[in-house]
Amino acid sequence: MSAPVPVAWIGLGAMGMPMASHLVRSGFPVVGYDPAPTLRFPEDVSIRTAASPAAAADGASIVVVMVATPAQAEAALLGSDGVLAGLREGATVVVTATIGPESATALATAVAEAGGAFVDAPVSGGVARAGSGELLVMVGADEAAFGAARPVLDALGATVHHVGPRPGDGQRMKLVNQLLCGVHIAVAAEALAYAERLGIDPAAALEVLGGGAAASFMLGDRGPRMVSGEFEPPRSAVDIFVKDLGLVLDADPDAALPLARAARGRFVQAADAGMGRLDDSSLIRLPDPGRREGAPQ
Amino acid sequence: MSAPVPVAWIGLGAMGMPMASHLVRSGFPVVGYDPAPTLRFPEDVSIRTAASPAAAADGASIVVVMVATPAQAEAALLGSDGVLAGLREGATVVVTATIGPESATALATAVAEAGGAFVDAPVSGGVARAGSGELLVMVGADEAAFGAARPVLDALGATVHHVGPRPGDGQRMKLVNQLLCGVHIAVAAEALAYAERLGIDPAAALEVLGGGAAASFMLGDRGPRMVSGEFEPPRSAVDIFVKDLGLVLDADPDAALPLARAARGRFVQAADAGMGRLDDSSLIRLPDPGRREGAPQ
Repeated sequence: MSAPVPVAWIGLGAMGMPMASHLVRSGFPVVGYDPAPTLRFPEDVSIRTAASPAAAADGASIVVVMVATPAQAEAALLGSDGVLAGLREGATVVVTATIGPESATALATAVAEAGGAFVDAPVSGGVARAGSGELLVMVGADEAAFGAARPVLDALGATVHHVGPRPGDGQRMKLVNQLLCGVHIAVAAEALAYAERLGIDPAAALEVLGGGAAASFMLGDRGPRMVSGEFEPPRSAVDIFVKDLGLVLDADPDAALPLARAARGRFVQAADAGMGRLDDSSLIRLPDPGRREGAPQ
Repeated sequence: MSAPVPVAWIGLGAMGMPMASHLVRSGFPVVGYDPAPTLRFPEDVSIRTAASPAAAADGASIVVVMVATPAQAEAALLGSDGVLAGLREGATVVVTATIGPESATALATAVAEAGGAFVDAPVSGGVARAGSGELLVMVGADEAAFGAARPVLDALGATVHHVGPRPGDGQRMKLVNQLLCGVHIAVAAEALAYAERLGIDPAAALEVLGGGAAASFMLGDRGPRMVSGEFEPPRSAVDIFVKDLGLVLDADPDAALPLARAARGRFVQAADAGMGRLDDSSLIRLPDPGRREGAPQ
């Protein structure tokens, strides 16, 4: 294995911070940037920070962008002191954020025009796996760009799957993942709330049903928090799936996608009720949208 | 353990046949009845059949009813030559069918008036586990009735969970299970069809995503059939979830239950398209209800 390449890391939030920390622990020299940092690096992680995305990118062979939204990714790359203003010729930009195929395709074009390569590489697995380098990475990129980014992706992921050659292919696979995950979270909340209304203890329902035909990763992961009512600090906020299920619908605009749409309705309802920054297990606290006022709960 | 009690078994269909066969193999003397038998018993299973539910019940200490619908359960028990016309004083009627709490409560009252005990004991796990005695059994019954039925339930189930004392409590837990299962099947079909429309190979999506945060038992069980397109013979037919998600909605009539309702809409749409007796993995073949005619598929 060759010497670790210098990496710029844009976005040090709930996922970006543990991912960048894991990269530092794996021996990569990392320069970080976040416009409004709220998290501290772990004590054992030594990292240099830069004053702008352009300054962070200056000198890096790989620039990783792990922000929360497509708009943030566009600002980080295309802004006046954005990554492209400092990108080294031939450097590779890796977007690990979930931004949808349309945004990934547009950013890939802009990066190519600036003389760089682009790797679309969204991830799945949550904060814990982010910190241990055990994410699932879904890649849309040509072979050359994928090869350049591979050492960094291998450090971040337990599984790195090359979905297809086009930037956006990784995003498409991620949206299939998010459709399933978002619906599984929403139905876990719906089913446990339903159990309670029928007079069944939700904790008993989770225990009896969670290992059988009704099992899902999300029921096992979010179910205990739904039952205990511990929604803070958030491990994955309601707002994430408001965005991601929106991207799911936007990527296939002629489709009804009745399950995805019903689930997104619940996340939007929660965000509208001021719960956007709570853990998404808080969906269980939403009133049923069709329940008559004054009807027994 | 005391000597196995004589059992009458009403309903020898996709689930009832393997369950009754397992009971025979476990040493119980079983008399069977089905109004329109279509399945043959395995060669190693010796069973006597009766001409009516009343004749089957005559002499049995335990009568198990495993039919497909609430109407069939009511006919089997209350019909002119139904179980109650032949029930021995003090015998126990066990309904393992999914009939909803309302029907279970009504049948329990009728059985009590006829001098019998009633055990509400729906099961989950599918045909394979039915034949190996590894079902999940969810019981609503008082302690005395539960105790009388226990040897039979223990033979049928890997896990026998006493949900509560009321007939209907087992049904309520089963409906929570069916809410989750039905939505998980419908979203698996929606997500794999969505993958294909986005240009992602559904088999690759299943392989990449099926073991991660998007995992569900149903995605793992139905996903391969959805991808291969093998919908016959049915292992669990579309009609089952038309009925069961209908029971879910009926048991909480004031609720919107948006996910359960969206999923039921897909099962109903499939049944209306003539697919009711196909395997429920055939949901992946349904056109998207919101897709414009002539739009690219």
